[in-house]
Order: sequence, then structure tokens, then C-alpha cells
Amino acid sequence: MTDLAALKRDLDGIPMEDNPVLVKQKSRDFFWYSPVLKRRLDHVTGDLVVSPRDRDEVIRVVRACFAHGVPITPRGAGTGNYGQAMPLSGGVVLNLAEMNKVVEIRPGVVVAEAGAIMEKIDQETRAQSGQELRLHPSTYRTATIGGFVAGGSGGIGSIRWGGLRDLGNVIRVEVVTCEAEPRVLQLTGADVAKVVHAYGTNGIVTAVEMPLAPAYDWVDAVVAFDDFLAAAAFADALGNQDGILLKNLAVIAAPLPYDYFLRHRRFLRRDQSTVLVMVAPFAVEAFAAFTRRFKAADVVYRSDLATEEERKGLPPVYELAWNHTTLRGLRVDPSITYLQVLYPFPHQLERVAAVTKLFGDEVPGHLEFVRFDGKITCFGLPVVRYTSEERLEEIMRLHDAEGCPIFNPHRYTLEEGGMKQTDAVQLAFKREADPNGLLNPGKMIAWEDPDYDFGAEKLYLFPGLERTE
Amino acid sequence: MTDLAALKRDLDGIPMEDNPVLVKQKSRDFFWYSPVLKRRLDHVTGDLVVSPRDRDEVIRVVRACFAHGVPITPRGAGTGNYGQAMPLSGGVVLNLAEMNKVVEIRPGVVVAEAGAIMEKIDQETRAQSGQELRLHPSTYRTATIGGFVAGGSGGIGSIRWGGLRDLGNVIRVEVVTCEAEPRVLQLTGADVAKVVHAYGTNGIVTAVEMPLAPAYDWVDAVVAFDDFLAAAAFADALGNQDGILLKNLAVIAAPLPYDYFLRHRRFLRRDQSTVLVMVAPFAVEAFAAFTRRFKAADVVYRSDLATEEERKGLPPVYELAWNHTTLRGLRVDPSITYLQVLYPFPHQLERVAAVTKLFGDEVPGHLEFVRFDGKITCFGLPVVRYTSEERLEEIMRLHDAEGCPIFNPHRYTLEEGGMKQTDAVQLAFKREADPNGLLNPGKMIAWEDPDYDFGAEKLYLFPGLERTE
Repeated sequence: MTDLAALKRDLDGIPMEDNPVLVKQKSRDFFWYSPVLKRRLDHVTGDLVVSPRDRDEVIRVVRACFAHGVPITPRGAGTGNYGQAMPLSGGVVLNLAEMNKVVEIRPGVVVAEAGAIMEKIDQETRAQSGQELRLHPSTYRTATIGGFVAGGSGGIGSIRWGGLRDLGNVIRVEVVTCEAEPRVLQLTGADVAKVVHAYGTNGIVTAVEMPLAPAYDWVDAVVAFDDFLAAAAFADALGNQDGILLKNLAVIAAPLPYDYFLRHRRFLRRDQSTVLVMVAPFAVEAFAAFTRRFKAADVVYRSDLATEEERKGLPPVYELAWNHTTLRGLRVDPSITYLQVLYPFPHQLERVAAVTKLFGDEVPGHLEFVRFDGKITCFGLPVVRYTSEERLEEIMRLHDAEGCPIFNPHRYTLEEGGMKQTDAVQLAFKREADPNGLLNPGKMIAWEDPDYDFGAEKLYLFPGLERTE
Repeated sequence: MTDLAALKRDLDGIPMEDNPVLVKQKSRDFFWYSPVLKRRLDHVTGDLVVSPRDRDEVIRVVRACFAHGVPITPRGAGTGNYGQAMPLSGGVVLNLAEMNKVVEIRPGVVVAEAGAIMEKIDQETRAQSGQELRLHPSTYRTATIGGFVAGGSGGIGSIRWGGLRDLGNVIRVEVVTCEAEPRVLQLTGADVAKVVHAYGTNGIVTAVEMPLAPAYDWVDAVVAFDDFLAAAAFADALGNQDGILLKNLAVIAAPLPYDYFLRHRRFLRRDQSTVLVMVAPFAVEAFAAFTRRFKAADVVYRSDLATEEERKGLPPVYELAWNHTTLRGLRVDPSITYLQVLYPFPHQLERVAAVTKLFGDEVPGHLEFVRFDGKITCFGLPVVRYTSEERLEEIMRLHDAEGCPIFNPHRYTLEEGGMKQTDAVQLAFKREADPNGLLNPGKMIAWEDPDYDFGAEKLYLFPGLERTE
């Protein structure tokens, strides 16, 4: 850090924090889900947290940082899991949480500032027009929309809409470039892919325009099975029911539901695997009719049938799903960790069966059914009973060998995480938007290493931008 | 007909019509799409049209007909294509068009009387809550909701929601049974399948509860290709884009668009095949970005970019699709007819290529992309340049031999049409709801023929009701 005092003077009037304890707090996310990242990133901290209140203040911050050569790491609520918003080279942590206004709501569309919390956005869109966001992470109540777009991939709603990778799930992103004279870009169409899930490495997301879906009073259901694979088969079939509107569809292998979902424990036996469902209220009869076809299915909980007494203190099922499954597990057993797996269509159930057989209780299954390239299949967020980094690597290699690609959540770079493919187009955009490489340094290998080969034959969740059919 | 005069006395006060010309008009549908049905059904007429104004009047009509042993054929707007509502044994044509009230609208749900016209329902649900029906036929502006449920299968919206065959796409059906003392049944869950697409053979549909989707100002787009199979591949890929909200996705082979879509002709060359798209306004940028990946795609029309002058007189694209393609064809060339084909996933594009190669311009292709059992695939409604019934039968056999099941639109029975599988459950329900077989006689073979074997290994669009996984 060259001259922190001079930078602060340039930012006079913009809220700042330099108390090292508080700065370190704002320099972290949920990286500690991974024992590997915990070891590597625990020391990371910025030098200064700056909290602009509008886009003009963002531009002032960027201009000053550019002049002083100070790195900028943009940050929402810090709910990422791979150190997305951790300032590897120190400098300014750009806290966008104060930019939290919902700017516009119209049929199918909301425009919000980057720091708006997703649950808050939905409260406004619900009240005004009976609409809600298509997609949100399990950290709905704390995560910001900008953080989700810049560092997330999908979650609740992906059973219906796919993920952020899909055209149409982000309509527009407003970004501020990191240049002597910062520009404001409005990216639409295929161009949004330049900054979606790019961790803010090539532009500071200041506002987003997102598609909305109708808001319903989703019914939570928990369906228990004695057999994990039977639960998976049920979920797969349910996900393929075109007329039954779902918002989430997860399968958690025994004994995780009983061991980790403490408030739901009273509905469960320890040897039961569960299917967690969010279903539209007007689809509940159809869901029940479908479920009755499966003799092994035991509907142990339905929020629309539960008494007030039963519902009391229960988290919504979306807070049992996705990374909240892992979070609840870590609270009970801090020694566990997790993986991110794709079980590719059309062999998802066979692949799940194969890895279940291979690892048993060392890697208890957690499936999240989603639409992926138009088909219903599942991601896995299996729990790993962690012993060593070597064994973790081996477990990942074995998944790959079984035809189940891993998106490695134990890496903090875009490319090694396997979610974001960089290519010449992506890199050219970074050169244009961040010529001095000040934005979230250390996260994009292709930038740091001019010889980086991005032609590798690997499945990326967000493929490169050079596409023609 | 035993005693028409006595029946009329019993129905005193309920609107009736016995002028033979008018009765014959109300005894017909679009059966003449088929030269086969035209020959077989052209003479069909009822004896009396009765137009009850509420459910109590329906019950009075049924009670009287039951007492006199008079057949009852329920009817909506007569927009079916297989003689669904044609009174093969004469008797009463029960015209439900006067029962056309929208009873209730709430989030995700509308309740309407059977005779409500679908466009009218949407006008009310749009005005009140920004919602619209998930599914409608291309005869949206004239068809009734009860007729759609009792005689239809899907259509506009099926790319998103599948068809009426799918659990959840009909929430509840109210039916009046045909007994000495008629009962009113409320069928929900899996039970709706007893009467959906059963042509009113086992209960008179008096009201329905249907799921709603958000209403948008859908953008019409026409994308032209020099090659029909390239158009099909584009549409298949577009249908698999999870984030791009579509309402319809059809492909029409050259030279049909130029020859039949007279008002759109000015946008087209005769050798161009077209993809017809209804896309949400907020998804247009994503749709355009996706389309740009296909070098062969030529967007010749977009309603959101067209001038008022260009839009003038153009029908909406949903009136170029589904059975409106055939209708427009018949207006230009009355000698054509059509088929109904399924190209099963995952080989839909190969199957389309195979039949295209086999028949060439004798059977120009018309594909309607839909969700079917959770996957995107396509139905076909190909035009057939008709020469003889024998050749038509042969064309159907050849489709079957290529792995493309036919739902024969040249048959008026449920079973031969191939849409509705009857089984013991279905038959038991008919015995209960229509013990004397007075409802729409002649349409259910299993009823007429006690030795009918419904175990046949054939694909039915609406499978039988004895299902357990």
C-alpha cells in the first residue's frame, strides 16, 4: 500500500473504516467451509473498507484508487464460499451494501442497486406487483443481488430457470470500469456473461436488471425415504413433471437430515433420507397425487398442513438446502467439508448410485435438482467427512473418473474453481475494463499468467464467450 | 328419439333450438380438416340444442334426458378437430356456451364456468391480477375452457408447461353425472384425468379450476432459414434455453409459410422455412443474443421492432401455429389434410430428418416444440398433400415404422385417436357417472365393446389411470 493517507484524503466524505479488526471482518466470506481455503486465506485482509452510497461515489473511489495504484475488491454481503470477495493483495474492500435501493419494478423485471439484499428486493416486488426473483441462494436473507450475480451461480429456483449461466437470467448489468476516468457500461444480452460470476475482476457491478417470476406462498414439504437412491429417483421423476410448479427440489442422504436439521429432527428417523420440496400452493394436490404413486414415499412434513405449533421455529426448507445444508452440518460437526459435483444428464441417477456405492458414509449425498441445458438433472453438494487434503483430492479425482465433473470449492481462482472459463474475449474485456489489473487481483489466472492455456477440455459452468453454432 | 315433445316440456324455460339447420350447425366441429372424418361424419346431427345458463339447469336437462333415454353430447364452441362434440346418436346437443362466467381469480388460479371463452378469461385475469392461462389452443379467441379441457390436449404454452395430460395443469374439474338424480363431482389431483380429454363421455364438465401464469405482452418473432432441418435444430436449441421465457415455438417447412401465411408473405421467400416464436418482452435481448449464434438464422419479423404500418392486419403468431397452420392451409388448398405425430426425445431431430427425407413435399413439416415428460421435444402437425385414404394410412404406418407415433386425427373415438387410453379405472368411472351410456355415445370403444383389449402396447398421450411406480 503506497499512500493510504493520501487515498483517504481523496475519498473525504465517503464512509470509510480502517479499524483492522473491522476491516478483517469485512475481508472475509464463508471460505472456511473449505479446510483448504481456511488454511490458505485465513490471514487475508484489506487495508480499508470504503462504503460508497451511490454510483458517483463508486466512481470517485475508483478514480482515486487508480491514481494511487490501490487494488479494489468489490463486496456484497460476503456470503460467497470460495473467497470470491477476499482482497488477496490488500487495498480497498469496496463494500456495496449501502447501495441497496430497488430502482424500478415492472412486469417480469426488477432493477436494483448491487447492494440490495435479495429478500428485501422480493419484499418490495411482492408488495408492489406479486412478483419475486427467479433465483436466489440459500443465503437469501443476507446476500446482495450484486454479490449473487458477481459470485453466485444459481440455487433456489434453478429447478425452474436453470442458473445465472443461462441467457435471460440476468437482463442487464451496470459496471464501473477501473480506469483513470472510469466508465459506466450497461451490459445486456450475451455481454452480461463477461461479468457474471467473474468475482468483480473486470468491472464493479453497481446495478443489475433481473427477470422476475410470480411470487407465491410456496409450500414446504419434506418427503422421507428409507433408501437414498429411491429418494433420488422420486425427485428426478418429480422434477420432470411439467405441470407441477416447484421452486426447489433437493435430496439429502441419511443420516444428514436427522443429524443436521435439528429443528426438523422430530419428524425424522436417523436412517431416513429426505426430499425437500418447495411447491406452489395451487400445485399441492397434484404434488400429493404424484407422491402417492410412490409406495416408499413418506410425506413427514407439509407446511400447509402443519399446525402453528409444529411450524414454530422451523426454518424454511430453502435454509436446509444448497450451501445451508453444509452450513448446518458444520455447526454440528466442524470437521466436515463438501464438494460441488455435476451428475450429467441423462445418466444422473446411475452416477449418483455409483459414487454412493464408492464412498458410502465418507461422502453422504446431497443432490440439488436443476434444469441444466434444458434437462432436469442434479448437482451434488455432498458432505465430505474430511481426513486430509490428499484424500479430498482423491475423492475429487474418483468423481471425475465416474463421469461426475467437479467444480472445486477448495480453490479461489475462477479457473481452478471450474465455474468460469476464461478465454480471449473475457481477457480482452478485462484489459479494457481493468487495464492495470487492480480489480480483485489474484482471482483470474489467465490475467496473471500470460501463458495460461484456456483451451483445456474441461466442463465449465460458465463457458467462454467465443461461441457460434 | 322416443319423445322429443315430452322432453321439451320437461325443459320448459331453458333456452332450446330445434330448427334443423341451426341444430346441424351446432352439431359440427372442425372434423372436416380430415377427408376421412368428413365422409364419415358429414351427416351427423343432433335433434335439439339445449343451452343451460347455470349448473342447476344442466342438472334439469340431464335428469330429463336420463328419464327419456335421450343421448347428451356436451359442447363448447365446437373448435375440436375429431368430431369430439358431434352427436353420433342424435339427441340433445348440450351447448354450454351460455355458462361463461369467471367465478374466481386468485394468485396462480382461476375458476371459470365451462363455457367461458379462453381469451375472455385472460382478459379478466389480466385486468385483475396480471395473470393468464398457462395453456390455450390456437383457437384462443373462440374456444371455451370446458371444451379445451374435455377435448383438447395442449398448445400455446406447452413449450413451458407440457400439456393437459400433466398433473397440475388442471387443478379441479366440476362434472355433473348422468343419472336419475345427477350428482355434482369435484375431481382434483389425479382424478381430473378421468374427464380430461374424455370428450364428455363420462360426465358433463360444468366448471374448471385452472392454474395461471403471469401475463406478459408477448413478442412475436419469425426467424427464417433456408433449410428446414436447420430451423428445427435452432428451435430445439432455443427450447432448451432455460432462462429465455417462451410461450410458443413452432417450425413450419417451406413452402408452407409463404403459401399459407398470406399476410406475412411479404417478409418471406417461398424457399424459407420459419420458426415462429412467442417470447417474453424482457427476454427479447437474450433471444436476440442466442439467435446471433446461428449464422443461418434470419429474423424477418419482430413485433416489438415492427412499425405500426407493418403490424397492421397481421394475425398473432399463435394464429399461425398448431391447428391454425392447417386451417390457413385449407383456406388456400382445400385438398390438403394433416397428421399428429410425436418425435420422441432424445432423437427428435433425427426422426424429423428421416421423415422429411422419406416424404419430401408430400408431407411438409410442421413442428411444435413442447415439454414432454420433462424434456423438450416436438410434436408434428405436418401437412399431407392428400391423395387417398390408403396412402394416408400408409404414411401413418411409415411414421410409426420410423419411431414416430401417430395420434390419428382421422378417427373420432378416444382410443383410435390414440390420445386417451381407457382402462378398468376409466371404465369403472364411466359406469358410475353414466350408467346408461347416454353421454356422447359412440366415442369410447371400451364402453361399446365389452371385449375391448385396453392392454395394447401403444403410446397414448393421456395414459390409463392404473399407475404406481
